[in-house]
Amino acid sequence: MSQEPKILSLEDLDTADAKWVSLKKIHWQDQEGKKRVWEAAQRRTRGASGIDAVAILALIHSKTKAFPVSTIIVEQFRPPVDKFVVELPAGLIDANETPEQAAIRELEEETGFVSDTVLDSTPLLVSDPGMSTANMKMVTLNVTLADALEYPEQKLDAGESIVRRVVALKDLYEDLKGYERKGYVVDARLSHLAAGFDLSERLRAGTIPS
Amino acid sequence: MSQEPKILSLEDLDTADAKWVSLKKIHWQDQEGKKRVWEAAQRRTRGASGIDAVAILALIHSKTKAFPVSTIIVEQFRPPVDKFVVELPAGLIDANETPEQAAIRELEEETGFVSDTVLDSTPLLVSDPGMSTANMKMVTLNVTLADALEYPEQKLDAGESIVRRVVALKDLYEDLKGYERKGYVVDARLSHLAAGFDLSERLRAGTIPS
Repeated sequence: MSQEPKILSLEDLDTADAKWVSLKKIHWQDQEGKKRVWEAAQRRTRGASGIDAVAILALIHSKTKAFPVSTIIVEQFRPPVDKFVVELPAGLIDANETPEQAAIRELEEETGFVSDTVLDSTPLLVSDPGMSTANMKMVTLNVTLADALEYPEQKLDAGESIVRRVVALKDLYEDLKGYERKGYVVDARLSHLAAGFDLSERLRAGTIPS
Repeated sequence: MSQEPKILSLEDLDTADAKWVSLKKIHWQDQEGKKRVWEAAQRRTRGASGIDAVAILALIHSKTKAFPVSTIIVEQFRPPVDKFVVELPAGLIDANETPEQAAIRELEEETGFVSDTVLDSTPLLVSDPGMSTANMKMVTLNVTLADALEYPEQKLDAGESIVRRVVALKDLYEDLKGYERKGYVVDARLSHLAAGFDLSERLRAGTIPS
């Protein structure tokens, strides 16, 4: 029995009562030796890897070239922003898991697709360094399909609801623009990835003067 | 008298005592009608625009083609992550300012460059929607230089220390990789932009099978 998810109420939360996040007051000294203060949010879930999360850029190919090289994006309701958000598949890294293991696991859970190769893994990235301690890696995974696009079954947790869509890389930037009309928002990292891809294409096409 | 900035101490901060950020407990109802709870961080600074921040993708051209089309990145110490971070120029939107006005102002303050044209402005993006309410837009600004690259004077606030670097777009992805050796980290959004640009180039070059 599916219905629109919704926010019921919202209240201030004290750090002492929070289970997943906390606020920190940071006393620091700047490059002129002046003592200053900064406030930041922090996840409580960081494990042995020292890294909070991974995002997965899946490159999906067809052996028969039945479709152009594509990636997969996911849509899910995100209570912090009270909207459906379009993102790369992503997830927190479990204790004692490497980022690459987490990426392969999360891709299969959220999308059903099984990767055959880890193509790339970025250095450590920070997600919003003016406001939080959150960090991550982006892992690029190869997925090879025998022929036409077929969606395998997701392996979601109970109560988890994630819609996945395979999109040709060449169409990604335009595709993301369409979400605004639906009232969805796009994750900044996914948007920047698509904008970078599009920028390269436009420079080559001469629609931006080089 | 310049010295390395550093963290002196760190303490838990209660929402009631925080000036810039807060924690929220969100009561929501999922798509199956089940009542659930989420915890998130929120900025206290959001103004009339309803948008926290802008990031600026500057496209810097030379009229004489003295250098290839480039962008500008900034390096600054970020207390939340206790590291120097490489980012696109960015900043919070002042009360009653549009995102595009904020972008033009921040680009000039942080880098000295004055934009002549707003090329593009994304729909609303969310920065880290599993953890925070933070949102933003990316604004693409054109900067035209008469000839060779010269860095104009920055307009920084007292105590602000930001290093800027103009980098050719074609070199950006490789350039960012070099920061790991320096002990710097890269902002995830900038990294995703560079990765998208590089992906397009590699697909065309055939170094990734399409």
